[in-house]
Formats: sequence, structure tokens, C-alpha cells
Amino acid sequence: MTKPRAVLFDVFGTLVDWRGSIHAGLAAFGAAQGITADWLGITDAWRGAYKPSMNAVRTGALPWTNLDDLHRGALVELLPEFGVRALAAAQIDELVGLWHKLTPWPDSVAGLNALKSQVVVGSLSNGHVALQVALAKHTGFAWDMIFGADIFGHYKPDPQVYLGACKFLGLVPGQVMLVAAHNEDLAAARALGLQTGFIKRPMEFGSPDERARPNQDWEVVADSVLDLAGKL
Amino acid sequence: MTKPRAVLFDVFGTLVDWRGSIHAGLAAFGAAQGITADWLGITDAWRGAYKPSMNAVRTGALPWTNLDDLHRGALVELLPEFGVRALAAAQIDELVGLWHKLTPWPDSVAGLNALKSQVVVGSLSNGHVALQVALAKHTGFAWDMIFGADIFGHYKPDPQVYLGACKFLGLVPGQVMLVAAHNEDLAAARALGLQTGFIKRPMEFGSPDERARPNQDWEVVADSVLDLAGKL
Repeated sequence: MTKPRAVLFDVFGTLVDWRGSIHAGLAAFGAAQGITADWLGITDAWRGAYKPSMNAVRTGALPWTNLDDLHRGALVELLPEFGVRALAAAQIDELVGLWHKLTPWPDSVAGLNALKSQVVVGSLSNGHVALQVALAKHTGFAWDMIFGADIFGHYKPDPQVYLGACKFLGLVPGQVMLVAAHNEDLAAARALGLQTGFIKRPMEFGSPDERARPNQDWEVVADSVLDLAGKL
Repeated sequence: MTKPRAVLFDVFGTLVDWRGSIHAGLAAFGAAQGITADWLGITDAWRGAYKPSMNAVRTGALPWTNLDDLHRGALVELLPEFGVRALAAAQIDELVGLWHKLTPWPDSVAGLNALKSQVVVGSLSNGHVALQVALAKHTGFAWDMIFGADIFGHYKPDPQVYLGACKFLGLVPGQVMLVAAHNEDLAAARALGLQTGFIKRPMEFGSPDERARPNQDWEVVADSVLDLAGKL
């Protein structure tokens, strides 16, 4: 392994606890509105719609649609399945906005700061620029560069995202490392020549399972962003 | 004036002293290489080639070409005019890289930090992403978002740049302010509905002249980024 010049991060699950944050946000909304529901079930169903909805864009069944609009469409569809009455548009917008205010894992901010003194540190997320800018303000992620999916008009794992980011940075793929808590994201990056770093996030889906274990010999496997920074 | 949600900055001349930095860098190179030349004249001629070379891209005479490559082409052309012998490719690259290491005006870093607590602070420069990422590392500019010309495939004052940045931020033009030391940049932004802020940089071209004075009633006119932050 040669030391990368830039380290790009997946965000949802890798740097932020989307499940805990969305569940807490939905439950707080329900309490404020007097709506009782299986908010954790809704959280998991909402995230469950994430890949199918992006795949509809990736296959061309949908034109380019950003994550706010995919989240909105999925939520409107699944709420009745959970017995929640129709919400006003402003309420749906409020809930979609929860994805702009996710809570970082405890090591994320300090880890990014530690890396930033050594290399270029950027995001490479399926979130769009506006979502990621808001999320960085909320969390304190001190990005050198935010790569939003809308810059590329593609969602990971489309190659345009990984290769596009390398090109914008003026680097060849071998000079760039993708860091994620997800094997499939890293597999797509490795196939294009990027280096790879796996971060274990056993609590991403609420309890440790197969998804939180590396399934290839990624260049780095770490327990946290701080651990990864130390290993680079 | 309603307070903008995002403030986007021109960079060369507005936040950094390109003339002093490039002159110093060229002179240091000359001293190290034992080359005597009118380095200040070369600095001004190099910058003089900036707009014509971008215009060749803007009119379609050249395909998309980033600023490093425009700088390289211009430098190779003008050095013989100043009696400087042909340089090696690596030397040319070294000099082109001076544009990645420009010195900020004394108020720029503190001013951006002051603004950052209030609004989204981004760059909107004709520099490409790689140049701007390097420049931000060098200067300490703590951008929320870097908008490089290569994201749009257009140079200012093409409208795609201003409107594209607003769209990426999820804002309408009236919610965004462009800040620059250059009237023509602000005029292009205003024509598209953005708010405008003029910063006086009387030393940009070495001595105060007409260009350093506002020629319209821009929403804000300031003596520094800190002054602008105070006025917002």
C-alpha cells in the first residue's frame, strides 16, 4: 500500500448513525404531533427503500432525482403501510430534512480532523451537495471537498462517481482511497483501481451482523476513523 | 437586502494576492535557477493572458481546458517574449503550481471563519477543483463548499456557473450573494438575480486604480471580508 493522496468517505452509516438519528427524529415528531407508530420499523423501511429507489435512477427508469426527493417519495408511500395518517407537505418536508441532521459516530469528527493534516479529505456520498453541506454544518465535518451525487448525475456504485472524483482531484485512482462501512461500495471502488478502507460499524443496523464484517482483504480495516488515520 | 443563506466568493484577487505571490514565486525560481528576467512584467503578462484564454473556452474555440493548462500554455508562449530561455516541462509545471499556493489577503481567513458561523460559505472561482482544494489547504480557507469551474464545464461570467452553484445549494439566486473585487463578476451575478458584495482590493494590480472602485450600487461594499461579515 502506498499512502493515498486523498481519502474519500462514504457518509451514511460510515460517519453518521442514520438509524439512531432518524428513529429519534421520527419519534420526537410523533410525540409532538400525538401520532403513535412503529417509528423504528418506519426507519428501517425508509432506509430499505434507499437502494431500490436509487437503482430506479441508475437504470434510467427515473430521471436524475436527488436523495431528498427519493426520501420524500419513499416516505409518502410507506407511512400508510404503517397506519400513519396522511401528513401535510410541510410535515413530510420536515421529516425528509432529518437526513440533513444526522448524528456522527463519536470518532468521526476527530478522525477526519486527524486525517486532514495528512491528506485531502473528501466525501463521496450518494447525498446531494445541499444535503451534505447542511450535514457538514450540523456535524462539524471539516471536508476539504464535498462530492455530491448530483455533481456526477450518478449514484454509487456507478463508476462515474468514483472516477469522476479522482479526475476532479487531478489524481489517478491508485492515489485515492475510498473508506466505507460497506463491502459493496469498496468492491466497486477497488474494481476501478482505488485503494480501500473498511470501517467496522457494527451498530449501523441496530445489532452486529454479517454486513459489518470485511469480506475482502481491504487495504485497511479499522474500528473507527481515528484508528484508520493512525494506520495510514 | 434580505440576509443571504449562502455567500460565494471569487478567489483570485478577492481573497488572495495573486500578483504579489506569483511575482515572489517567479523571482525565487529565477534566483534558484540563475535566470534574470523582468519577473513582475511576466507576472502581469501571465495574468493578462487569463481572460483571453478563458474566452477561447467560453466561445468554443477551445474545448474544456482547466486553469492549469491555460496557465501552462500562456506561460510557454510569453517566456520567450521576455527573453527567458526554454524551460523543462517539470520547471513549467513547478511555475504553474504557484497558482495553487497563493497568499491570502490578511483578513481573508478570519473573515471567512466569521461568516461561516452565520451562512454557507463557498468558493465560486474559475479555478478547478484540484487547484482550489490545494489552495484551501495552503491558505486555511475553511470552505463549506468548493465550486470549481470544472464542475460546470464553464468559466465565469457564463451564467451556468452562477446558476449552477445556486441549484447545487438548493437555493434561488436571491438567497445567494456573490462577493468579488471585480465589478464585471458582480454585474453578471446581479443580472441573474444574485445579491452582490464588492470588496475593495486596491493593491490587486499593484497600485489603486479604477478597477478597485465599485461602479454600481452593490448590496454591500466592504473594505475586507471581516468588514463584509460585519455588514451582513
